Amino acid sequence: MTTIPPARRGRPGYDLESLLEVAVKLFNERGYDGTSMEDLSRKLGISKSAIYHHVPSKEELLRLAVAQALDGLFAVAHDADLIEGRAIDRLEHLVRGSVAVLVEQLPFVTLLLRVRGNTKAERAALARRREFDQIVTELVKQAELEGDVRPDIDPAVTSRLLFGMVNSLTEWYRPRRGSTGADLADAVCKIAFDGLRLNRTPAE
Amino acid sequence: MTTIPPARRGRPGYDLESLLEVAVKLFNERGYDGTSMEDLSRKLGISKSAIYHHVPSKEELLRLAVAQALDGLFAVAHDADLIEGRAIDRLEHLVRGSVAVLVEQLPFVTLLLRVRGNTKAERAALARRREFDQIVTELVKQAELEGDVRPDIDPAVTSRLLFGMVNSLTEWYRPRRGSTGADLADAVCKIAFDGLRLNRTPAE
Repeated sequence: MTTIPPARRGRPGYDLESLLEVAVKLFNERGYDGTSMEDLSRKLGISKSAIYHHVPSKEELLRLAVAQALDGLFAVAHDADLIEGRAIDRLEHLVRGSVAVLVEQLPFVTLLLRVRGNTKAERAALARRREFDQIVTELVKQAELEGDVRPDIDPAVTSRLLFGMVNSLTEWYRPRRGSTGADLADAVCKIAFDGLRLNRTPAE
Repeated sequence: MTTIPPARRGRPGYDLESLLEVAVKLFNERGYDGTSMEDLSRKLGISKSAIYHHVPSKEELLRLAVAQALDGLFAVAHDADLIEGRAIDRLEHLVRGSVAVLVEQLPFVTLLLRVRGNTKAERAALARRREFDQIVTELVKQAELEGDVRPDIDPAVTSRLLFGMVNSLTEWYRPRRGSTGADLADAVCKIAFDGLRLNRTPAE
């Protein structure tokens, strides 16, 4: 009986996608500024020149990683925009879809939310985040105009608190801890749109 | 005419409180791990031994800073606990009070929320944060038992989303941008307890 040799021997090869996954994990653990290409090469068990075969710089890894998170979020915003009818429904779709993107792309969105703006790639990511915030704020304004959302909170504050709730998932949600993405999206939408308080008659 | 010399000449002196403020600002900008006592001494314009006159180590600065934030939050939890009546009222008091602590101690709470647990002081802070989360979760459970809070979300998830909203203030709230702490506490409580959606009859 012959033993079939494993397809990959010794140090593993990486495609850009798997290289990016390891880079994002390392950036999240040590901070982007605190991670060198040397660290990454050690972690991957490949030479720096093997990394440079895929990407020209550390900044390009960051750019690709946060673009993946942002593309997911903007795709959801685009989907929401196609929903006809009321702005509150588009807003709810956007919140649910964003929770799904966070859950599916947790390390990538975590990195995006930690970006501080020291490099060109970081400043570009911050600009796209502001653009996304603006979309949310506009939807809240529109829903308020349509009489579906309470008018007594500044729409920009509402939009930030809403996504404060959504983005907090990157701090505490861990896959396989019970809650699925759909459960979490339900929880966020129930709290945000209908509130925690049960409306009860004083008599009850 | 004689010129009165300024009371403080050359390098300024610091008491522990003002030293702590500068340290917290630097930790937030560069990360705790990324800040050395050398950096701090340069920033303060005093020698390292002048810093060691106040505190034995960088870790002690961190411990003092996060303790200040935690003491504020636990004082609010203690106040809330004294409120007689329904758990939902204690929960609302806790949320409002926490927003006030965040607004008043913004850099200190920001540092607390970024603590990752690499040193003894950080692990102790994380343990106290978990203790605080537990207090919030218990209040949510109690309010649910009393029939005041919706029973269809896991109380631990509710508590994390609620404080996801509160803690997001450290990401976007800047003093003198219009909203006061009381406005923000109102906004958080309106969304969290009563929801964004206006309850309208289909007929309107």
